[in-house]
Amino acid sequence: MDKQQLWQRYQDWLYYHEGLGVYVDVSRMRFDHGLVTQLTPKFEKAFADMETLESGAIANPDEGRMVGHYWLRAPELAPNDDVRKEITEPLANIGEFVQKVHAGTIKPPTADKFTHVLSVGIGGSALGPQFVAEALSDVDPPMVIHFIDNNDPAGIDRVIEQIGDHLKNTLVLITSKSGGTPETRNGMLEVKNAYESKGLAFEPNAVAVTMPGSKMDKVAVDDKWLARFPMQDWVGGRTSELSAVGLLPAALQGINIDEMLVGAKEMDEATRVKDLKTNPAALLALAWYHSGNGKGEKDMVVLPYKDSLLLFSRYLQQLVMESLGKEKDLDGNTVYQGIAVYGNKGSTDQHAYVQQLREGVPNFFATFIEVLEDGRDTLFEIEPGVTSGDFLSGFLQGTRQALFENNRDSITITIPQVNPRIVGALIALYERTVSFYASLVNINAYHQPGVEAGKKMAASILDLQTKVQTVIKETSEVLDMATLAEKAGSPDEVESVYKIVRHLAANGRGVSLEGELTDLKTLKVSAS
Amino acid sequence: MDKQQLWQRYQDWLYYHEGLGVYVDVSRMRFDHGLVTQLTPKFEKAFADMETLESGAIANPDEGRMVGHYWLRAPELAPNDDVRKEITEPLANIGEFVQKVHAGTIKPPTADKFTHVLSVGIGGSALGPQFVAEALSDVDPPMVIHFIDNNDPAGIDRVIEQIGDHLKNTLVLITSKSGGTPETRNGMLEVKNAYESKGLAFEPNAVAVTMPGSKMDKVAVDDKWLARFPMQDWVGGRTSELSAVGLLPAALQGINIDEMLVGAKEMDEATRVKDLKTNPAALLALAWYHSGNGKGEKDMVVLPYKDSLLLFSRYLQQLVMESLGKEKDLDGNTVYQGIAVYGNKGSTDQHAYVQQLREGVPNFFATFIEVLEDGRDTLFEIEPGVTSGDFLSGFLQGTRQALFENNRDSITITIPQVNPRIVGALIALYERTVSFYASLVNINAYHQPGVEAGKKMAASILDLQTKVQTVIKETSEVLDMATLAEKAGSPDEVESVYKIVRHLAANGRGVSLEGELTDLKTLKVSAS
Repeated sequence: MDKQQLWQRYQDWLYYHEGLGVYVDVSRMRFDHGLVTQLTPKFEKAFADMETLESGAIANPDEGRMVGHYWLRAPELAPNDDVRKEITEPLANIGEFVQKVHAGTIKPPTADKFTHVLSVGIGGSALGPQFVAEALSDVDPPMVIHFIDNNDPAGIDRVIEQIGDHLKNTLVLITSKSGGTPETRNGMLEVKNAYESKGLAFEPNAVAVTMPGSKMDKVAVDDKWLARFPMQDWVGGRTSELSAVGLLPAALQGINIDEMLVGAKEMDEATRVKDLKTNPAALLALAWYHSGNGKGEKDMVVLPYKDSLLLFSRYLQQLVMESLGKEKDLDGNTVYQGIAVYGNKGSTDQHAYVQQLREGVPNFFATFIEVLEDGRDTLFEIEPGVTSGDFLSGFLQGTRQALFENNRDSITITIPQVNPRIVGALIALYERTVSFYASLVNINAYHQPGVEAGKKMAASILDLQTKVQTVIKETSEVLDMATLAEKAGSPDEVESVYKIVRHLAANGRGVSLEGELTDLKTLKVSAS
Repeated sequence: MDKQQLWQRYQDWLYYHEGLGVYVDVSRMRFDHGLVTQLTPKFEKAFADMETLESGAIANPDEGRMVGHYWLRAPELAPNDDVRKEITEPLANIGEFVQKVHAGTIKPPTADKFTHVLSVGIGGSALGPQFVAEALSDVDPPMVIHFIDNNDPAGIDRVIEQIGDHLKNTLVLITSKSGGTPETRNGMLEVKNAYESKGLAFEPNAVAVTMPGSKMDKVAVDDKWLARFPMQDWVGGRTSELSAVGLLPAALQGINIDEMLVGAKEMDEATRVKDLKTNPAALLALAWYHSGNGKGEKDMVVLPYKDSLLLFSRYLQQLVMESLGKEKDLDGNTVYQGIAVYGNKGSTDQHAYVQQLREGVPNFFATFIEVLEDGRDTLFEIEPGVTSGDFLSGFLQGTRQALFENNRDSITITIPQVNPRIVGALIALYERTVSFYASLVNINAYHQPGVEAGKKMAASILDLQTKVQTVIKETSEVLDMATLAEKAGSPDEVESVYKIVRHLAANGRGVSLEGELTDLKTLKVSAS
């Protein structure tokens, strides 16, 4: 295709949302009309699946629950009044709570006001809030937010040290849908310990965001935490940014959450249109399908040309990979589906790996995100007539062309600015795209059976550790690894036992390891 | 293989560096002895290539230069005294400069002391310093560092706003090897403008890190910047962390750069051993080759189980992808080589996408990074006998097992702690692995011909913008897009002209765009 033909293709396929000012351009994905015709019945099914989902079907069979994140921004669509109330009540409560916290009428016991937020959560309870904080919070927000999103003792200590003397005026959000996520439970205990070590009470500063009746919820009730906000049973972690999980920390930082909901609702409406060419999520799903042959053969490289969108790719990584990465399709066939997602930001990443994108393994398609408004009031020109924003725009166009020329496809999403309404819209756009794509390839986007295996194995390692510790404590002998494993009741788990012992010994945990570290057979374990 | 056999395989292949306390475990990569035999001659060539490189061959033919980052930590190995001096002199100068800055004997004109660092650079001039800052700086370092690593006006403004009143006591490092990187040149002009807008002089706070004689170097001399540090011609951007590029900002933050160099040197020595099984970089290169069939068929997912190593995967993304992502091999064959790299940190990423890793597209291998010492002095137990560090360790082992069980391979690198020596060693380990792997697949790791295409296209977009602006300014007519493109001398570039106009109009830059935004043929452009 020559440039005039490409321009025609660009015009033919360009989607524009008038209300939001958002463009979706799939013209540089090399699908043809044959594919469109082939997929038409699949899209009809996808549109029908969408209706079934939105009307309250049990979409997560593993957990026997509905999937209703679309209702969060349009409670009027919820299947009944009970569900509607589950949306409107917490939303009103968040508004009131945040207003009181900002005003200082809700305050910590030993300070005048809450000035900091510490969010403890992982996965769906962290990535959305982190993305939104980076994208939308002011440099000088009403409350400064910190995150504990892992179980690394050094990482936890670092965050606590960063907060320093502000701990007493820090509002701690503990977010876990099930209330049983080990990292979050542990993080909570670590933070509680940090408060107590400084002679402060944890509970008057603590807020639970969890399902009513969960383990965490019960702790919050029993221990009289400052507040509790519900996570709805019908909202999954990776689509929870527009529930209390995302809205509470955003509102505390002074971000306009009503606008986020409005933007998501507008995009939801646009993606309900049952017509491929005028539905932006359907266009994206078509492009994904084309690129990876409906089998995820190509990775999705996400390149927002805007610093504040740096974490969007991490957010999408979870949304896309956890939703689409499935071994079985809906008919029980083994399919190993999924799309790998990575990326940071442009033009920075051009200097990191566009060399490979342009010349190397052609195993990806790119998604450029362009922001039209540079976000400056006063003009500063680098050269006569040319601003930094022009350079950034030129880098994006140049990279898009250089990739296309070398047969590397790309999507471009153009937004007017990074504001709460547009961020809400972007989240909704990708939530729907994932839903459509799952329909196209016949998988369930709303469960995550593979996550359990790792959790169970981790739990069995911790069980084994306890047994190993007991054996070492109770024996006066010096044991080799195989004997220790046998005495711990797991003769086959010598490697795991070795690693447990190595970790305990490195941390002065009552275990001594002697012998040649290069020759594991010589190693001897004893109590120290 | 049953668990006992796996334990045997683990012992057979485990590499341990006694001095550094670093382990490399490739036992869960399913290569067999056939591959080892097949690759033996290739490894012999790789070891020979290493010697040629280290003795000063012209390894980057495009730029006609030697590749000598290994000499940075062992000047005694440099091919001659001139090169040796190019290492030892700047290193001594950095030490002296930093000591004076910390002591306040080198100070800004309108403040007592430099307290902040602002690093302006992109790609190789940013990723290393950012990784090291995140990994090694204290919560309360002698100088706080900020980064401008892009050309986004809003992002630049945000950093300047974060620095706020500290601008007068901020030391600004402008880092660009060629001295002509547009993003860095623009960033420098933006920062200079920020100083001048506040009535401050930029030059007394400015430090250039660039090749002697470059454009940037001349500006620094002419404008009497505070200081200049040289980048060596024979060090490429992506391997420059242990040159002034990385050492200067690290030292300013109080990080022990001598230890970084020592660690890198120790690892370099270990990776000079000409024996696959006792050379950790050769083992990694073998594992990479096996996994992707020598063609990059699998992505590398990097998962450090330690918060402070979060940016290691971004650092490796550049090192690996820019080095290995090549269209042509050394014989001129079209090969489209490379390995895609992504990842953030464990266990956090387990909650984001282990679902796909375990069950979805099997298009990757994982690299776990384990840190043995939890980094705590006082014991805090989550449950009797069990710490957060035990959980983290259990999550890593559990995920490794869960992946392996489902035929997903992994490498595990175990380090004692995250300290300057180990970080230096990790950098050196991966630099050498990339070098070996490039030899195995017969490509040049030390040029980046594909980067130019995007740069040229970006430059031509900016040229076109200037022409478009001139046409609009000089005509009183209202033009459609095709006519405007024609008048600007690029009748084929209607799409680019449209995008230029759309961006200018969105920023109130003297251009008005009218018509139906959904129907590009109706759009009319005029001066506003």
